[in-house]
Amino acid sequence: MRYSQVFGNNTLRHNPSKSKSIGYSLLLRGGFVRSLGSGLFALMPMGMKVVDKMKTIMREELDALGGQEMDLPLVVPQNLWKKTGRDRIIGKQLIRFEDRHGHDLVLSTSHLEPITQLARLSINSYRDFPRFLYQFKTKFRDEEKVRCGLFRAKEFTMKDAYSFHRSYTDLNNFFPKAFKAYSNIFSRCGIEVVTAESAVGSLSGDRAYEFLMECDWGDNLIVTCPSCGYRANLDVAVGVKEITSGVPKPPEEIPTPGCDTKEKLIDFLGVDASEVAVTTLYETLNGWVLVVIRGDYEISSEKLSRLIEEPVIGLASDEEVKKQGLKPGYLFPSNEITGYRLVVDDSVAESDSLIVGSDKPEIHIRNASFGRDFESSFVGDVARIRANTKCIQCGALMKEVKAIEIGNIFKLGNFFSKSIGLSFTEENGEISHPHIGSYGIGLGRLMMAIVEANKDEKGIIWPQGLAPYNFFLMGIGKSFKVKNIVDKLAVEIGADVLFDDRHESVGVKFKDFDLLGIPYRIVISTKGLLDGNAEFYERRTGKAWRVPLGMVIKTCKALIDESI
Amino acid sequence: MRYSQVFGNNTLRHNPSKSKSIGYSLLLRGGFVRSLGSGLFALMPMGMKVVDKMKTIMREELDALGGQEMDLPLVVPQNLWKKTGRDRIIGKQLIRFEDRHGHDLVLSTSHLEPITQLARLSINSYRDFPRFLYQFKTKFRDEEKVRCGLFRAKEFTMKDAYSFHRSYTDLNNFFPKAFKAYSNIFSRCGIEVVTAESAVGSLSGDRAYEFLMECDWGDNLIVTCPSCGYRANLDVAVGVKEITSGVPKPPEEIPTPGCDTKEKLIDFLGVDASEVAVTTLYETLNGWVLVVIRGDYEISSEKLSRLIEEPVIGLASDEEVKKQGLKPGYLFPSNEITGYRLVVDDSVAESDSLIVGSDKPEIHIRNASFGRDFESSFVGDVARIRANTKCIQCGALMKEVKAIEIGNIFKLGNFFSKSIGLSFTEENGEISHPHIGSYGIGLGRLMMAIVEANKDEKGIIWPQGLAPYNFFLMGIGKSFKVKNIVDKLAVEIGADVLFDDRHESVGVKFKDFDLLGIPYRIVISTKGLLDGNAEFYERRTGKAWRVPLGMVIKTCKALIDESI
Repeated sequence: MRYSQVFGNNTLRHNPSKSKSIGYSLLLRGGFVRSLGSGLFALMPMGMKVVDKMKTIMREELDALGGQEMDLPLVVPQNLWKKTGRDRIIGKQLIRFEDRHGHDLVLSTSHLEPITQLARLSINSYRDFPRFLYQFKTKFRDEEKVRCGLFRAKEFTMKDAYSFHRSYTDLNNFFPKAFKAYSNIFSRCGIEVVTAESAVGSLSGDRAYEFLMECDWGDNLIVTCPSCGYRANLDVAVGVKEITSGVPKPPEEIPTPGCDTKEKLIDFLGVDASEVAVTTLYETLNGWVLVVIRGDYEISSEKLSRLIEEPVIGLASDEEVKKQGLKPGYLFPSNEITGYRLVVDDSVAESDSLIVGSDKPEIHIRNASFGRDFESSFVGDVARIRANTKCIQCGALMKEVKAIEIGNIFKLGNFFSKSIGLSFTEENGEISHPHIGSYGIGLGRLMMAIVEANKDEKGIIWPQGLAPYNFFLMGIGKSFKVKNIVDKLAVEIGADVLFDDRHESVGVKFKDFDLLGIPYRIVISTKGLLDGNAEFYERRTGKAWRVPLGMVIKTCKALIDESI
Repeated sequence: MRYSQVFGNNTLRHNPSKSKSIGYSLLLRGGFVRSLGSGLFALMPMGMKVVDKMKTIMREELDALGGQEMDLPLVVPQNLWKKTGRDRIIGKQLIRFEDRHGHDLVLSTSHLEPITQLARLSINSYRDFPRFLYQFKTKFRDEEKVRCGLFRAKEFTMKDAYSFHRSYTDLNNFFPKAFKAYSNIFSRCGIEVVTAESAVGSLSGDRAYEFLMECDWGDNLIVTCPSCGYRANLDVAVGVKEITSGVPKPPEEIPTPGCDTKEKLIDFLGVDASEVAVTTLYETLNGWVLVVIRGDYEISSEKLSRLIEEPVIGLASDEEVKKQGLKPGYLFPSNEITGYRLVVDDSVAESDSLIVGSDKPEIHIRNASFGRDFESSFVGDVARIRANTKCIQCGALMKEVKAIEIGNIFKLGNFFSKSIGLSFTEENGEISHPHIGSYGIGLGRLMMAIVEANKDEKGIIWPQGLAPYNFFLMGIGKSFKVKNIVDKLAVEIGADVLFDDRHESVGVKFKDFDLLGIPYRIVISTKGLLDGNAEFYERRTGKAWRVPLGMVIKTCKALIDESI
């Protein structure tokens, strides 16, 4: 390909975006992607070539597990989302609209609902397992915050995959294979990932794992233990909670005017956050739940959701709290007024003499103790664990690491099958619901991560097998001889060469070669031709060497064969 | 691939849809596609394989013309559509929505606006031409009538391509090459197409051509001359209009109570449709226009749009007509009341003594004549020409043929460049606007057309190179020997064989082979093994022959090599 003809060959010397991600900036500067609006991106021809190579790697790994590629519509009936309740859980991320015939439709943020619906039409018997289906498909998520270009876009292409199994055991047996395929994909894409258990989020599933890459602008906090290697996403991490219990003192009411937030209360009473117990109201898929936790912890919606075995939609607003007959900031940990379930974090259950709300205006209660002053059968860990908490495995102090998520896999169980009405007949005639696994990688995000992990101060250094072209060819000098030789070589090397035939200086071409990250540069110069040589240069290592003209094609072939 | 593991292997013996298209019915029955809602379809794994092969053909043909593949977002800012006015012209087909940050967005029905916007960021100089860009991308059109399954779906994947040229001459020179590439694509897909000039529609362009396949349920009417071969879409076809003129008689007012439609007027007066001239009001992109045409013709919006050089949005409603101070059904062909342009079809301009409205209630005028009683400088042909009109070239009576459109190409000129603000610097320093061509093929529609043209009463007969697999393998008999041999052959033939290992009868497997349209069937039977033979059968020709077991792999290879 002649670079003069490439759409997007006007490279930029400076970062045109305000993003913190150097990876995104390099993709913009090299003409791999362009922005078309907030969270909306176009893949330019050079970027398309990279993504195609990423797709080939994914297809190879997924096909090896019996993966079958398909293509589902982006727009699906909202009715399917109502069946799983996800239209409410996902909230504003989900774009809904009505077509001219009055059908309520949504733009898919993922494709679990329609693939389960299709499985209804195709899976009937215990013989019809397993099925492992995947696609590369546009998704639209109306994100609250778009971030770092392709990293969190509104529209993006996802490689999403779904596996259907006869039983939970079968899903469990398949899961490590999918895990391995994902590890292979990332390793072949030249990035080092760590895995961490993560939130199942809106998917109402059993377990989820994230594939993460450490990154200083990452928005994913991972709690890790430097001693034993424990690692989990902040949403699900566990750790040792410090408990200071003593002999419970008798409870007493204290006036606390204007203390309708934890911060105001602590400030007014001059106590430590660990001395108060904060009660809040959460909305869940099917109703409401009260949660009480010690003031030095925050609540993890994910842990809460797992404890009550129901998706959590979010914290109730002050207005909602008032509607339920409660006073924001003054809630007493009991379900006497509302009848809702009360969840007690173990930090509260195991501490004595805490300050709690009283359900009366402007009054809190001092020395309240679980088991004596309030009770519940829902006791467990719903706290977010942060850095400097002791590791539950080895007792060492844990750290937090910033990372970006580049893939995730979910063990979903049979919630979706049951909701959508997917069932099959067992060998013995019984009706059963398949267990589903779900596996996702965002392509734009992955491309950005690849660049983030494979770059230097001059530009991108594409990993072997992902570069848009393997060779960058240029001539130096205006002699006909140079021109004839580069023209001839361009044809002979063929589809795998980017021939920089632009009317630009040698310096500009060298800089663009560095920016574009193509593995090998081949220069034909008047000087080199004196000895009948071409000059080869390897982008990753900086290695330069001379090759007799007659050996150029052979050398190119050998370089590619070597790298496979 | 083992057919027992294919997602969607539950073939259907009867047409599950009410569609008239046998092609669509066969695709449903064979498990190539499934419906997920009105106008919403999923490509199942077998359908995906066919579409992938179609894409390969298209890539080869487009790349040969310097095509560069990219990927644009489906969702784009509405603002881009406002610049070209197409948000109004396209009307209800275009889904608009607001994201949570208040951005007005649309679901692209085509990608002319964003590609032109991207060109603004990449084309600056006369050196940056030509550019030929394409993608395979989801489109969403909120069609008034979804039809025949994939034929007119709401969501579909389109191969859309756009070419940018320095001048109209350059576009004209490129156009025949794109035309040829399209012809190659259809011919390689095994369908016979005819081409016809067609409406430019909302694209405000210069010329458009459709690639059509004759089809008895087609919704596209083509006017053809059996004598000289003239052919054009009904919207743009021309023909000889019969004129009966004489000495104009003096005009006179006649009472016509309740005659507010053409039909009522003709009925009330007992005259022929050709004796009246009907005046109507049309909305255009920038205003309104009055049009008068003889009662025996209908107006072609496309011809009207070309005559006034402005996109036509549609016929004004009775309410709109009244708002303009006019009386529906009684409009006099003059712009005295409104000041709008008056377009006169030549059928009216050349006829004498027609019955026209009077702009007064319940009164028409008899013997009105153009040039004496009303005038305009906008005279031309805006009539739809139907069957039994004389050919303008040779005078023979023309026919109408039903067809389906499977591709179209547009010569758009520089309207989009000007609207979006795409310009470049000429060699002499002048600023100029590129000329654009646009080229589209809907993939689902094409797949359906392929089946429509390649089928028999038993099922699909995929053209060479498009079948999901080239070989269908099965065993007859329960002996271990048969089982061992088919298992071994399945592995040896590899990715190109569909091995029917289902627990089904021979009859069912034979029927499914016929339905799926795979080119070659290979049967291993106890009987055939007595002579050491496999039985080959060709779907298209019905030819059957025996091949020694040791020659099966060689035979498969030869059959594929032959066909290339």
